Amino acid sequence: MQVFYAPDIDRERYVLDPKESRHIVRVLRMKNGDNVRLIDGKGNLYEGVIEDADQNGCAIKIEKINPNFEKRGYNLHIAISPLKNPERLEWFVEKAVEIGINSITPLKCDRTEKSGIKRERISNIIISAMKQSIKSQLTELSDQICFGEFITKSRPGIKLIAHCDSSFERKGINEAYIKGENATIVIGPEGDFSREEITLALEHGYTSIHLGTSRLRTETAGIAACHSIYLLNQ
Amino acid sequence: MQVFYAPDIDRERYVLDPKESRHIVRVLRMKNGDNVRLIDGKGNLYEGVIEDADQNGCAIKIEKINPNFEKRGYNLHIAISPLKNPERLEWFVEKAVEIGINSITPLKCDRTEKSGIKRERISNIIISAMKQSIKSQLTELSDQICFGEFITKSRPGIKLIAHCDSSFERKGINEAYIKGENATIVIGPEGDFSREEITLALEHGYTSIHLGTSRLRTETAGIAACHSIYLLNQ
Repeated sequence: MQVFYAPDIDRERYVLDPKESRHIVRVLRMKNGDNVRLIDGKGNLYEGVIEDADQNGCAIKIEKINPNFEKRGYNLHIAISPLKNPERLEWFVEKAVEIGINSITPLKCDRTEKSGIKRERISNIIISAMKQSIKSQLTELSDQICFGEFITKSRPGIKLIAHCDSSFERKGINEAYIKGENATIVIGPEGDFSREEITLALEHGYTSIHLGTSRLRTETAGIAACHSIYLLNQ
Repeated sequence: MQVFYAPDIDRERYVLDPKESRHIVRVLRMKNGDNVRLIDGKGNLYEGVIEDADQNGCAIKIEKINPNFEKRGYNLHIAISPLKNPERLEWFVEKAVEIGINSITPLKCDRTEKSGIKRERISNIIISAMKQSIKSQLTELSDQICFGEFITKSRPGIKLIAHCDSSFERKGINEAYIKGENATIVIGPEGDFSREEITLALEHGYTSIHLGTSRLRTETAGIAACHSIYLLNQ
């Protein structure tokens, strides 16, 4: 069944915005009486029926609310450097939202070549992936911030820095993470974190991890980290 | 250090093909005496030194052979339906090679919308991802075959079919897979496998699995399956 995004839902009747309305009426050709599901990005899933299939404002009658529809049992925050090719970060975002992630922060590291992200485009990818994978909790997207600023701020749960510098002792993510715990994981740019960045992270309570023997691209490392936390919670 | 692909290496001196030679000499501006690493796609990694930085045929003197460089401890074969957007299958291939996979077979399922794959393009992605992630074993790419033909053929190890049809009993991949075992995993198209396909797979010794509570896109399911097998072997 189709899922639509209704961020400001608060009553028994909801009118979708023009974009979602056109999609539902023109593209999907749905009609009065058809069943739909709505997600509010706050953890709730609503079941409803189309009452007025108007392409400028499609009205839905809500029949059932499933509160706290999405229960992951952990909070995951990944901070990651954007890449020269913006598609690679976008791809990470889409996959991480599908698998399950609470927050994404783009980082500016010593070796980050790309400054700035296409915020609106990434926000749309988040919403689209949330609908596709039937997540009811909207992934939070922060503004890009400097590595030092991110790393020195207090964070709840287990804090991990994934890197390839074997002159530091590194654990496997399965050794460093404990099931059920919240996690913050930082992932570096092409060319990895600098030694100074890794040292700063260790001084602020981060544990060095690797994501296997392979040299993974940044976006692959992000997905591997996100999926590791998912699987270690099963 | 840079890694180059030398599929037919068999002696102490190796001349790279014109494409790799141009890359090493023109793009990377490497010179006589520079150290390089070569992989043969058969599991070996060679360390050598540039002896003649000729852009038409760069000669490398081999100084050390690391046989069986890549030891994964399991063989993984994923058979997956191509998608309408060919980029999505290509993304899966790149990421799966980075994480570690032995064979990829494109499938033609009941609901596969796309017939045919860009074989040469995907082969190049495999080689490029193998070099990027320093894998010494080349991932085998088969021709696209029909689901029925694939599923009825005998396969070594544990055989899994990942799908979203909850009318069948499904295990988590962590319950169905045993560490150290070889695995064959089939991943369906947008719109999932048909009931008939799932039934046929079960009749041929496949176990039904899910990859979590999320509704994953095909290429995400492929990566999640590949990464699950990696992590369950740690």
